[in-house]
Amino acid sequence: MAATTGLSTALLTDHYELTMLSAALADGTAQRRCAFEVFARRLPDGRRYGVVGGTRRVVAAIADFRFGPAEVEHLRATGVVDEDTLRWLADYRFGGDVDGYPEGELYFPGSPVLTVTGTFADAVVLETLVLSILNHDSAVLSAAARMASAANGRPIIEMGSRRTHEAAAVASARAAHIAGFDTTSNLEAGRSWGIPTAGTCAHAFTLLHDSEKEAFEAQVAALGVGTTLLVDTYDITRGIETAVSVAGPRLGAIRIDSGDVGVLARQAREQLDALGATGTRIVVSGDLDEYAIAALRAEPVDAYGVGTSVVTGSGSPTAGMVYKLVEVDGRPVAKRSSHKESRGGRKLALRRHKPTGTALEEVVYLASGPAPELGEHDRLLQVPLLRGGDPVDDLPTLGDSRARVRQGLVSLPWEGLKLSAGEPAIPTVHPAQEQA
Amino acid sequence: MAATTGLSTALLTDHYELTMLSAALADGTAQRRCAFEVFARRLPDGRRYGVVGGTRRVVAAIADFRFGPAEVEHLRATGVVDEDTLRWLADYRFGGDVDGYPEGELYFPGSPVLTVTGTFADAVVLETLVLSILNHDSAVLSAAARMASAANGRPIIEMGSRRTHEAAAVASARAAHIAGFDTTSNLEAGRSWGIPTAGTCAHAFTLLHDSEKEAFEAQVAALGVGTTLLVDTYDITRGIETAVSVAGPRLGAIRIDSGDVGVLARQAREQLDALGATGTRIVVSGDLDEYAIAALRAEPVDAYGVGTSVVTGSGSPTAGMVYKLVEVDGRPVAKRSSHKESRGGRKLALRRHKPTGTALEEVVYLASGPAPELGEHDRLLQVPLLRGGDPVDDLPTLGDSRARVRQGLVSLPWEGLKLSAGEPAIPTVHPAQEQA
Repeated sequence: MAATTGLSTALLTDHYELTMLSAALADGTAQRRCAFEVFARRLPDGRRYGVVGGTRRVVAAIADFRFGPAEVEHLRATGVVDEDTLRWLADYRFGGDVDGYPEGELYFPGSPVLTVTGTFADAVVLETLVLSILNHDSAVLSAAARMASAANGRPIIEMGSRRTHEAAAVASARAAHIAGFDTTSNLEAGRSWGIPTAGTCAHAFTLLHDSEKEAFEAQVAALGVGTTLLVDTYDITRGIETAVSVAGPRLGAIRIDSGDVGVLARQAREQLDALGATGTRIVVSGDLDEYAIAALRAEPVDAYGVGTSVVTGSGSPTAGMVYKLVEVDGRPVAKRSSHKESRGGRKLALRRHKPTGTALEEVVYLASGPAPELGEHDRLLQVPLLRGGDPVDDLPTLGDSRARVRQGLVSLPWEGLKLSAGEPAIPTVHPAQEQA
Repeated sequence: MAATTGLSTALLTDHYELTMLSAALADGTAQRRCAFEVFARRLPDGRRYGVVGGTRRVVAAIADFRFGPAEVEHLRATGVVDEDTLRWLADYRFGGDVDGYPEGELYFPGSPVLTVTGTFADAVVLETLVLSILNHDSAVLSAAARMASAANGRPIIEMGSRRTHEAAAVASARAAHIAGFDTTSNLEAGRSWGIPTAGTCAHAFTLLHDSEKEAFEAQVAALGVGTTLLVDTYDITRGIETAVSVAGPRLGAIRIDSGDVGVLARQAREQLDALGATGTRIVVSGDLDEYAIAALRAEPVDAYGVGTSVVTGSGSPTAGMVYKLVEVDGRPVAKRSSHKESRGGRKLALRRHKPTGTALEEVVYLASGPAPELGEHDRLLQVPLLRGGDPVDDLPTLGDSRARVRQGLVSLPWEGLKLSAGEPAIPTVHPAQEQA
């Protein structure tokens, strides 16, 4: 499970991070001890929960955040910063600490999902890259979790690579897998992250042949009777008839990619059963999202293929997280000019639960103040991710993160799993200490 | 302007492309001559035009589409395809032709924006990668063109990297630049594509210091009086006062990132003028999209910073283009089971214009049939991109593509530039020959 590419990530950065660095190096403030906090002011579009995605990719990207000769030369040639700053960048290696919510953890408005502590210089340059990863991966993971929840245990295949940037496709497949999707179409996600890949044939394969029958024969010859035959190129009823006549009643599955898939699935099930193909599964795809998946619950569907909606965050393609300076040399700081105020001070969080395990509230409190009481059913939410610039030893695996999503969804109050727009499933509370 | 990374793009592909290949190699159909066509069935969300983005990245990605030992070994280890197919993939180099709309060209429903011709084997494996690039880049470019059009000549800075996948951020900066944005915050876009980068300071820089005055002094010392001071960390009126007292009346610009930026810009202009800073420009940012930009036309704003909305395609994060097999050994083919029918046959396109240069209609016609008359003011839309697998010599530069977007927008009927939802600005017509 390759986590880093060995390629520098240092220029995946906003110009102003380096001009701030340059000015701060010049006046000595670059060495002040700072805490930057990543959080979302709100959940997107009436969502009731978010799921943190990308944490492990952030850890890898920080390790690759080095300014090699090529990066320094580009910055010199374009005059982005001065020679003193270039020398500093050439030696840069993040030396601070990172704590955060483990990947797959639920989050709510104000949850401190990641905290970067170190000198201003160390921490400021990571802003853009950290946010890119968390905002993208959390948007996809949050949408995917709603789909997995709507699928209610039926398998889901992620097949949206073609609808998003080619590298974002790999990260999307990974996020969807953490959310509970079973397989992905994306081969690079298989190589980079060990995610099982799947796929058989598109309409093009049928059209390539002189008849649907010849196409099915070729596919079964190459991939076996356990394959999935796509039956909606011409006429679905005839397609199913041909599929079973070619593959026999032990055909693995059929796929329907268009039309009113609920109605078609019912008709297909009857037809397959009548043909003796009682074990042949029905896979549906074609513009499915969490609402369509939920609407198909009562239909004889065995698996869903989901594309566009999952890789675009189902209407919310970015999680809207921000990276805010909250503490300088132990002093809380915050912007104050508008409704966009942040709460100053480095924060920690715990989640309170009922004895039954149902989540009650997200408690976000100042690290410098008295810690709220941690009840028997409560849980601290941040864990160490890097110490002195080095990743900690026991980062969660993808499997751990998958399990965490499942546990998180189980812990939500029942309203929290509703797909309709509403308030966050649990409130975020800030103990009185923070108002001081 | 590095176009390729030299890294293999071959696994940025859906599993089923390779299983189809495997089955087609086994039954001999892999060598049939095919044409695949990329088009959008519709424009997103009431949009009146689309702009093709990513063409040049597609050309580069095809050149890097090679299965090296690492890719072959992954496919062997995971059993995706058989040994015969692995041998074929190890020797794969695209040997066909690609024609398409040049980057920056307008497109409409059914426009054949890219056509890949070659053997089935040659062309089928490129589907996912080609669509990923075109769908992402066209979504961003199309949204960005609406913003550039709304800005009506005022400069726009792209600063959305933190809201999208870290690699998508680079492609987004590039697409926005083609659309007419002047600069980007993204340093890698500067390195990879030669796009001018810009940026000065964030709120964090002010908060790092003991006072706003000290922060401004440090910034001016490092970046000169021509810099842009961010004045809304605490109180904007006092921020502007401090900014001019520190930098003098020749301060380059102030930036306002929150609040009702229209009202604030007017107040700021009056205050700056009263302080003698009549040449100090006003940059506004903070959740701007094309509608907000248009609403600010009458305000004294000198430049816009745009983030989230541009990198997420302003509500339409994917262009929804498809890659359809339309011709096999000279025979038109098309799916027929549902409303999603395609029109069979390899197609060409021309755009008709009035003598004034205003576009009239998009004519999409069969390459095999009689060509429609090409009037004096009409224009053929597809150009060669690859021949025998090699990129053609005179691919458009980014500057060419920027000019093409400008010309395209000028050619639209006036309704076409309206931001409100509506029909495509010009109709797509299919001459009668095609019904045959």
